[in-house]
Amino acid sequence: MEPAAKRHEAPSASAGGAFLAAARGEPGHRTPVWFMRQAGRSLPEYRSVRGEGSILDAIKQPDVAAEITMQPVRRYGVDAAVLYSDIVVAPHAVGFGIDVAPGTGPVANRPLRSSNDAERLRPLEFDDISYVIATVEALVAELDVPLLAFAGAPFTVASYLIEGRPSKDYRHTKALMHTDEVLWHDVMERLAESAITFIDAQLSHGAAAFQLFDSWAGALSRRDYDRYVLPHSRHVFRELRRRHPDAPAIHFGIGCDHLLESMYEAGPTVMGLDWRTRIGDARRRLGDDLAVQGNLDPALVLAGVGPATDGAEQVLRDNQLANGARHPGHIFNLGHGVNPETDPGVLQAVVDLVHERTEPA
Amino acid sequence: MEPAAKRHEAPSASAGGAFLAAARGEPGHRTPVWFMRQAGRSLPEYRSVRGEGSILDAIKQPDVAAEITMQPVRRYGVDAAVLYSDIVVAPHAVGFGIDVAPGTGPVANRPLRSSNDAERLRPLEFDDISYVIATVEALVAELDVPLLAFAGAPFTVASYLIEGRPSKDYRHTKALMHTDEVLWHDVMERLAESAITFIDAQLSHGAAAFQLFDSWAGALSRRDYDRYVLPHSRHVFRELRRRHPDAPAIHFGIGCDHLLESMYEAGPTVMGLDWRTRIGDARRRLGDDLAVQGNLDPALVLAGVGPATDGAEQVLRDNQLANGARHPGHIFNLGHGVNPETDPGVLQAVVDLVHERTEPA
Repeated sequence: MEPAAKRHEAPSASAGGAFLAAARGEPGHRTPVWFMRQAGRSLPEYRSVRGEGSILDAIKQPDVAAEITMQPVRRYGVDAAVLYSDIVVAPHAVGFGIDVAPGTGPVANRPLRSSNDAERLRPLEFDDISYVIATVEALVAELDVPLLAFAGAPFTVASYLIEGRPSKDYRHTKALMHTDEVLWHDVMERLAESAITFIDAQLSHGAAAFQLFDSWAGALSRRDYDRYVLPHSRHVFRELRRRHPDAPAIHFGIGCDHLLESMYEAGPTVMGLDWRTRIGDARRRLGDDLAVQGNLDPALVLAGVGPATDGAEQVLRDNQLANGARHPGHIFNLGHGVNPETDPGVLQAVVDLVHERTEPA
Repeated sequence: MEPAAKRHEAPSASAGGAFLAAARGEPGHRTPVWFMRQAGRSLPEYRSVRGEGSILDAIKQPDVAAEITMQPVRRYGVDAAVLYSDIVVAPHAVGFGIDVAPGTGPVANRPLRSSNDAERLRPLEFDDISYVIATVEALVAELDVPLLAFAGAPFTVASYLIEGRPSKDYRHTKALMHTDEVLWHDVMERLAESAITFIDAQLSHGAAAFQLFDSWAGALSRRDYDRYVLPHSRHVFRELRRRHPDAPAIHFGIGCDHLLESMYEAGPTVMGLDWRTRIGDARRRLGDDLAVQGNLDPALVLAGVGPATDGAEQVLRDNQLANGARHPGHIFNLGHGVNPETDPGVLQAVVDLVHERTEPA
């Protein structure tokens, strides 16, 4: 592997343009690459900066958060930086009472189960997240590539607050949804406003695009998604596109193939796909012009350079038009976050392959 | 709730017919009900019989396994019994070296990673599972309703053997699949033969139908399913339908909406659906005559009688034809196994509601 420093000294001049052009479906650029959770976890330089303790403490230190955000850009030469953040930063910042326990995930000692609990979700203000804004400002001054803003979608944040710990079946979340629809919508409205403010803060200070993470929406039937979730995610996209009409808006969830039409109806400009949805199938269902992001199975990256690059080639083939030409509306990514045990050399091979195969003549 | 004994004394005369008729799409019966993992876990009478220790030890005692299998039939008045079993019974029986650790799940100290390991999967013979056959024989002599045979599908069994412990990302399984296709297909052929023998043993001794559980196939893209899994599951269905042409054959997995066409192509006569696939959508995709099983979200059963019965009513509506009549090809079930913490009274309310709403005049 090449030393990380080399890549930092010689970033591609077109890197910034590639991400935004692909998100807008504009031709003439290489296929941009970034990775969810690229900012850390699997990198040795990350572990040396990050230390132990809650991720939320690291996020509160702008110098640390900015450094971690930049590490994968330096090392891999990816085409976008994603703010080092966490899905529960916003509810943590308003004092709901949620933290991230190392090795476990988000934990709330008093989960959200009643309207009294919901009162702990007061409106988010920029002052609550001054450290996030400071990180964004530092990054925008430093980066040669676009910075992606990040927020958890109302449903996925709600699931953490209501369960109080990582869950496999979302039983408390679904119970609340189905037994107290008034409280449910109140909570979701609060979380939609929070997501809007959280992303607005990042875009207003220089982030160029955003991704709304509804990681666990796939646990829902389409009927439940449409009734209990869609109105709130649609509100997030509508309001942010009104405030920031030029910022590409990505919508992503795991195992959401059965929700694809509804999640697109929520109003993103780019659909994030996991490996269960073939890129060509998404365009058949949602329209030939669809800009997509994805969708290499991260398990193939764990399996080594051979399976990872074979898989990446297949993703590029999936993005071809009928005449074999490359569809311009494709941002390369994994179909889920980078596993902490991933070999950085394998990710590097994937980045290099995608860039080499798609560099315009 | 009515005492369990009453239900045992007065089973519906048409109960046996309802399950088989629905599986064959024949009209004139009430909608039959059974639950995956109905045989135990959430029942107090189960916990008193079962004791501590590995489920595999309980399965080896025909009197215990038969009693547990019958408990939910007595208590709930469901329309089918499902053999009390486990996905890893067959590989355990040939001495692969896998057990079920209480609270954890299947654990293999020496996971399957090489062709040497695959040799530990010798062919299953009826003599290896004489206790299963004894249980089936005892049940068939006693039951008023059909007995469902049970086996894990090759992929899901392989995932347990290869991972060696419950996994979220199936990394070792996918790595083997993508790095040693010859070994992969060898393992899958062994497991397909094992599933055939395991189900054949149950059907030959009186079970009336079977379900092949490919619980974790939803982790795969359709491309990978079609290449690495479908040929083997198709072999299982073809061979069993050749040997037992009258036995309905159910195919089930979690989060498999994106694999629906392929899993049907494998050759079942009934498609088991989780709550992510709407019954009407499955029939639009696979054919109007499709017999289906499912698909109430088990989280609604955890949420109480109101959400559970509302959800059950919705499932019944989803099974209606355009003219509002009930489609005859529907077996009511949850979209996943019964959670151990489920209130038996809620399940009883669901059974009663489905029976009352669908009893022929």
